[in-house]
Amino acid sequence: MQGDSDRRSYDRGTSIFSPDGRLYQVEYAREAVRKGSATVGVTTAESVVFASDTSTRSPLLERDSVEKIHDVDGRLGIASAGHVADARRLVDEARRFAQTERLRYGDAPGVETTAKAIADVVQESTQTGGMRPFGVGLLVGGVTDGEPRLYETDPSGTPSAWRATAVGSDGDVIRDYLETEYTDGLDTADGLALALDALRAGAADLTAAEVAVATMDADGFRTVDTDTVAGHFGGAS
Amino acid sequence: MQGDSDRRSYDRGTSIFSPDGRLYQVEYAREAVRKGSATVGVTTAESVVFASDTSTRSPLLERDSVEKIHDVDGRLGIASAGHVADARRLVDEARRFAQTERLRYGDAPGVETTAKAIADVVQESTQTGGMRPFGVGLLVGGVTDGEPRLYETDPSGTPSAWRATAVGSDGDVIRDYLETEYTDGLDTADGLALALDALRAGAADLTAAEVAVATMDADGFRTVDTDTVAGHFGGAS
Amino acid sequence: MQGDSDRRSYDRGTSIFSPDGRLYQVEYAREAVRKGSATVGVTTAESVVFASDTSTRSPLLERDSVEKIHDVDGRLGIASAGHVADARRLVDEARRFAQTERLRYGDAPGVETTAKAIADVVQESTQTGGMRPFGVGLLVGGVTDGEPRLYETDPSGTPSAWRATAVGSDGDVIRDYLETEYTDGLDTADGLALALDALRAGAADLTAAEVAVATMDADGFRTVDTDTVAGHFGGAS
Amino acid sequence: MQGDSDRRSYDRGTSIFSPDGRLYQVEYAREAVRKGSATVGVTTAESVVFASDTSTRSPLLERDSVEKIHDVDGRLGIASAGHVADARRLVDEARRFAQTERLRYGDAPGVETTAKAIADVVQESTQTGGMRPFGVGLLVGGVTDGEPRLYETDPSGTPSAWRATAVGSDGDVIRDYLETEYTDGLDTADGLALALDALRAGAADLTAAEVAVATMDADGFRTVDTDTVAGHFGGAS
Amino acid sequence: MQGDSDRRSYDRGTSIFSPDGRLYQVEYAREAVRKGSATVGVTTAESVVFASDTSTRSPLLERDSVEKIHDVDGRLGIASAGHVADARRLVDEARRFAQTERLRYGDAPGVETTAKAIADVVQESTQTGGMRPFGVGLLVGGVTDGEPRLYETDPSGTPSAWRATAVGSDGDVIRDYLETEYTDGLDTADGLALALDALRAGAADLTAAEVAVATMDADGFRTVDTDTVAGHFGGAS
Amino acid sequence: MQGDSDRRSYDRGTSIFSPDGRLYQVEYAREAVRKGSATVGVTTAESVVFASDTSTRSPLLERDSVEKIHDVDGRLGIASAGHVADARRLVDEARRFAQTERLRYGDAPGVETTAKAIADVVQESTQTGGMRPFGVGLLVGGVTDGEPRLYETDPSGTPSAWRATAVGSDGDVIRDYLETEYTDGLDTADGLALALDALRAGAADLTAAEVAVATMDADGFRTVDTDTVAGHFGGAS
Amino acid sequence: MQGDSDRRSYDRGTSIFSPDGRLYQVEYAREAVRKGSATVGVTTAESVVFASDTSTRSPLLERDSVEKIHDVDGRLGIASAGHVADARRLVDEARRFAQTERLRYGDAPGVETTAKAIADVVQESTQTGGMRPFGVGLLVGGVTDGEPRLYETDPSGTPSAWRATAVGSDGDVIRDYLETEYTDGLDTADGLALALDALRAGAADLTAAEVAVATMDADGFRTVDTDTVAGHFGGAS
Repeated sequence: MQGDSDRRSYDRGTSIFSPDGRLYQVEYAREAVRKGSATVGVTTAESVVFASDTSTRSPLLERDSVEKIHDVDGRLGIASAGHVADARRLVDEARRFAQTERLRYGDAPGVETTAKAIADVVQESTQTGGMRPFGVGLLVGGVTDGEPRLYETDPSGTPSAWRATAVGSDGDVIRDYLETEYTDGLDTADGLALALDALRAGAADLTAAEVAVATMDADGFRTVDTDTVAGHFGGAS
Repeated sequence: MQGDSDRRSYDRGTSIFSPDGRLYQVEYAREAVRKGSATVGVTTAESVVFASDTSTRSPLLERDSVEKIHDVDGRLGIASAGHVADARRLVDEARRFAQTERLRYGDAPGVETTAKAIADVVQESTQTGGMRPFGVGLLVGGVTDGEPRLYETDPSGTPSAWRATAVGSDGDVIRDYLETEYTDGLDTADGLALALDALRAGAADLTAAEVAVATMDADGFRTVDTDTVAGHFGGAS
Repeated sequence: MQGDSDRRSYDRGTSIFSPDGRLYQVEYAREAVRKGSATVGVTTAESVVFASDTSTRSPLLERDSVEKIHDVDGRLGIASAGHVADARRLVDEARRFAQTERLRYGDAPGVETTAKAIADVVQESTQTGGMRPFGVGLLVGGVTDGEPRLYETDPSGTPSAWRATAVGSDGDVIRDYLETEYTDGLDTADGLALALDALRAGAADLTAAEVAVATMDADGFRTVDTDTVAGHFGGAS
Repeated sequence: MQGDSDRRSYDRGTSIFSPDGRLYQVEYAREAVRKGSATVGVTTAESVVFASDTSTRSPLLERDSVEKIHDVDGRLGIASAGHVADARRLVDEARRFAQTERLRYGDAPGVETTAKAIADVVQESTQTGGMRPFGVGLLVGGVTDGEPRLYETDPSGTPSAWRATAVGSDGDVIRDYLETEYTDGLDTADGLALALDALRAGAADLTAAEVAVATMDADGFRTVDTDTVAGHFGGAS
Repeated sequence: MQGDSDRRSYDRGTSIFSPDGRLYQVEYAREAVRKGSATVGVTTAESVVFASDTSTRSPLLERDSVEKIHDVDGRLGIASAGHVADARRLVDEARRFAQTERLRYGDAPGVETTAKAIADVVQESTQTGGMRPFGVGLLVGGVTDGEPRLYETDPSGTPSAWRATAVGSDGDVIRDYLETEYTDGLDTADGLALALDALRAGAADLTAAEVAVATMDADGFRTVDTDTVAGHFGGAS
Repeated sequence: MQGDSDRRSYDRGTSIFSPDGRLYQVEYAREAVRKGSATVGVTTAESVVFASDTSTRSPLLERDSVEKIHDVDGRLGIASAGHVADARRLVDEARRFAQTERLRYGDAPGVETTAKAIADVVQESTQTGGMRPFGVGLLVGGVTDGEPRLYETDPSGTPSAWRATAVGSDGDVIRDYLETEYTDGLDTADGLALALDALRAGAADLTAAEVAVATMDADGFRTVDTDTVAGHFGGAS
Repeated sequence: MQGDSDRRSYDRGTSIFSPDGRLYQVEYAREAVRKGSATVGVTTAESVVFASDTSTRSPLLERDSVEKIHDVDGRLGIASAGHVADARRLVDEARRFAQTERLRYGDAPGVETTAKAIADVVQESTQTGGMRPFGVGLLVGGVTDGEPRLYETDPSGTPSAWRATAVGSDGDVIRDYLETEYTDGLDTADGLALALDALRAGAADLTAAEVAVATMDADGFRTVDTDTVAGHFGGAS
């Protein structure tokens, strides 16, 4: 085929297929995810651990406001890579979903249910006209019915469950690292160490202060302080 | 005619015909189905059997979360090939339809009724503006009024009933195999063996762990465990 | 004129006329009808007979599920050629119309009323933006007030009544045959024979099993079994 | 100017003017009218007479179903040339209008009021986006307050009253004939003769069976049978 | 600039400006007005006089149905040049407006108020998408609070008051004539004479029967019969 | 850059930015303002004065109907340059706003509040699709809480307050004149003289009859008669 | 790639991604921000300080009406750079949000909550069709729960918190200055001095009268008068 010129004919509308059955706008949104700084998720025997690169351009920017990891409802967490504003909108959707379910059924929804609700919103953005896809990849984590679960949702609206994975910049490198190093039956501390090591497999010179970490276990969502991270890195924040 | 340049004039809007009466967007959506990993459906004297290729890129991905076969309501199953997120949306439609019908008529809808309800949703996506077609082929199976039924719905919204068929990658090869090997009056175990053999006719090196299998009989929808599959493959998962 | 390049300027929107007063999208939808396998309709002194080519690609496909002839409400029948999914949608419209009329007036609508209601839906699809025309030609038949009536609706939304006609592939050949062979005052058996002969005038090697036949008389809609067809063909199904 | 290429810039949207103040889509819709078979309308001292060419391609087509002349409400008639399906939609509008007016004011609307109501619907189709014009010219006739009135509505939505006129194929030839032969004070039989002669001025070889005729006088709308027409033609139907 | 090619970039949408701040669609609609047959309006000390060219193509067309001058509500009149169907729609707007105001305030609206209400409708058609401008120029006349007033509304939606003016074909020639010949303090007969002379300044061979004339004074709207016009022309109708 | 061809890519939709962050449609609307005849606004110690060029093409046009200066509600005035019909629409918005506020709060809104309400309407026209910007610049003046205030609103929807300014043709020349000649503490007569002199700095041969003048002080909105203007010009009207 | 021509294919719709995952319209809106005059925000131990360049083209323009700093609700302030009219719309959104929250929860929302509500509105403008992004960067400041907070929202809808930052023209230069000179624990007077120095790092010849300054502390929002600024600049206003 004529390559670029051919592709350009099909990639400017979210609601059309290319002759080879691809949705280019969804693939370009994946590129936006790959451009975002990396986020790692790891399941352990008792918890899910998130570690995110939050390195910033300026020392005057308050790092806490770089929202890579969100506490959905005290139990579940969402970590993201890609378009920050799009991630915020999906997190809002997740929060509304959790509240509504809790009111309706007296019980908050689990990781899988919540991840699939987000995926439904994302799928609709890829099929209905008048809207672009979401340029963000999310990790949804938490402990549901005693079991630590970690889901990813991508810009096509496909949910998938992982023992450990990464989204964003150098995601392939980090996933390779995880495939080699991951073992079942880790405790939270081991999981945290693995997540941090994996994150540094992609960006070796990250400092403790440039990393956001959170754990979700039976007691709920908790952020991990910089000193703990620095302890793992063998240095100050 | 001028070939490509001519075709390009008619294939970027879901709601128009080409001069030879074709709907190109529907044909491109069929291409998305052909790109998906394969799913086989076989009817037996007492059941319907689904077998799907769920091989994945990464050992850390939880294979159960690769949703190729869905339990609609404890009785009916839906297996898919193509765009995963689109399949999820249509399965949601099927579940809502089954619930509504049950509430309205006190009885859950059968295979044919459900497949046609899905097909109606798909047809509308091909005629009304502002929406692309669904890039997914579905198999809908179950036992209705004592009779095992297997329906396919394609991206044009056409429903059709089969004794055995396949959707997705290498579908032609698998269907050829089925046409040669299928016989009436199989029991569920025979049907399962045929479905697995047919699936391997398309992808010879699939392992038992890379295949999802489910049966729908008078007792309802049931998934088949990996050991049973491995037994058929003559090896471990 | 400049031929193709000129035509291309006016054929990509349903809601515009070409300089010579044509609606190209409607003409392309007619092409979709001509691509469909043929359906014949014949009126007799006491009934309407439909005969449709339902030959399929695969022996595993259940021929009954190839919907060429639909029972609307036990009295009227609709046979189609062209885009199967579009036909199903119009048949649904006809069923809804028949139910509504029956509830409102205590009496089900006749052939002419029903055909015109379908034609209205089709006309609207050709004038209002945001929708393509229906790529299907329909025959609507039945006995109303003691009189057998046969209507055709085409993609422009024009209804017309016939003593005998055909839609779909080789329609011209079949209509020529009917114009030569048709006579008034046939009984149902004669009408059935004529319809089958006409259908084979277009596709000589059709077997009895590849043909769907139905009759609509004062007692209502009835499908004709394969043995009866085979008897006419002088051979087994 | 650059002729064709210039025109093509302004003729593909109903809602825009060309630099010389023309609405091309309306002019193309007029072309669709000119392509339709002819219809003649003549006013007499006591009635309005319609005569329409209903010649058809096939002897199996039931001529009565070729709808060129419509009985609106037992009093008024509408005859058309052009796009048959569009004419049906406007006749439906006229029927709804007549019913509503009768319910509201206890009295059915006259010819002028009805013709103007149709013209309003047509005008809107030429100004508001998302809809093509109606490709049909209508004659509206009847006796209102003792006076026979004949109105034409064209694709621009302009109503005009005539003593005698024609729409459709060879309309110019027929109007020329009428301008020469028309005289005031005709009775219905004279008017019928004039209408038939005028119609044959455009298509000399029409037979009585190929012509539909209706009269509207103080007693209401009435179709004229083929024998009466044949009597005028000096031959059998 | 590049002339035509440059202009073509900005003249196909009603809702955009050209780089030099022009709205081309409005200017093209003005061209449609200039193509219409002429209408003259003259104010006198006691009345407003309209005179319109209603010459027609065919002697069978009933001249009264060529609507150039409309009686709005027994008091006000509207005369038009340009697209007849568009004029009818704006006259309908004016009638609705007059009725609503009368119901709301117990008093019918004056010339200025009515002209401005029409102008508001016209302006909206030039700014909001999905609609073309109105291709018509209107004169609105009548006596309000004892004062004869004459307003013009153009396709941009600008209202302006005149002592005497003309819209339509040869409007410039007629306005020049009026500027030379108009004097204050005319009575109705003088005004009528001036209007007719001005109209013939544009089209010298108009006969009395080809002119529609109306006056609006303290007693309301009145049409002037052909004999009176013929008397002025010094000849029969 | 490639100049014209580059610009043309971004200037045909109101809702998009050019690569250098400009909104071309807004800039073209500003050009429409610059094409309009000039209007001057001057604040004095006790009042705001408007003076507008209302010279017209024809002596038969009633100058009062050339609406350059509008009385909003007896207190505030709005003067405009540019597209007259657009100005009328915004003045209507201002009147509606003033009425609503008065009903809601028992007090009419001041100059600043009213100017900002207009600016909000204008801003929305520049951001939301389906509408072009307003091609008009407005001056809003009056005395609020004892203080004379003069606001300008431009086609971008930006409000700004001035001691003295001008919009429309030769606005730059007039503003230069005002910057040189304006002093604080003028009384109304001085302000009127300054406004007229400034207006003639742009168009030297304006006669008194070709200028509309109004003042807004503690007693409200008042138009100034031609004799007063002529007195200033040292000549008759 | 082909550079400009390639980019032009993806930058004219807000709702599509480019192949490298960028949203060009958002980047162009950022360019509109960079074109606006600068605004600085600084947090101190007890307050937030805003300083904005309000230098204007004309001495007759009332500088106070150049709205760079807005008092949201007596507590929070918003400073902006870029498209003034867009900033006003977002400030209106913030005011409405603050009122609604206060009514609903009895307590006004803090800086972070308000900044995120604005960011949500901005994000939606970048994803939903029919609207362009907001061409404005905002600083939101105030003291919430005793803590001074300063948020920025950019045209992508991303909120971020800063100890000190700048938006608009020469923003990089100013931020560099702030990174060098900022220290924790400043009091309001120190913060004010830093903000003014930073602003002059970008535009050295600003006079005190050309700068707007405001502080937000525990007592609420307060503007700083020109004399105070002049005192810092070591000269008169």
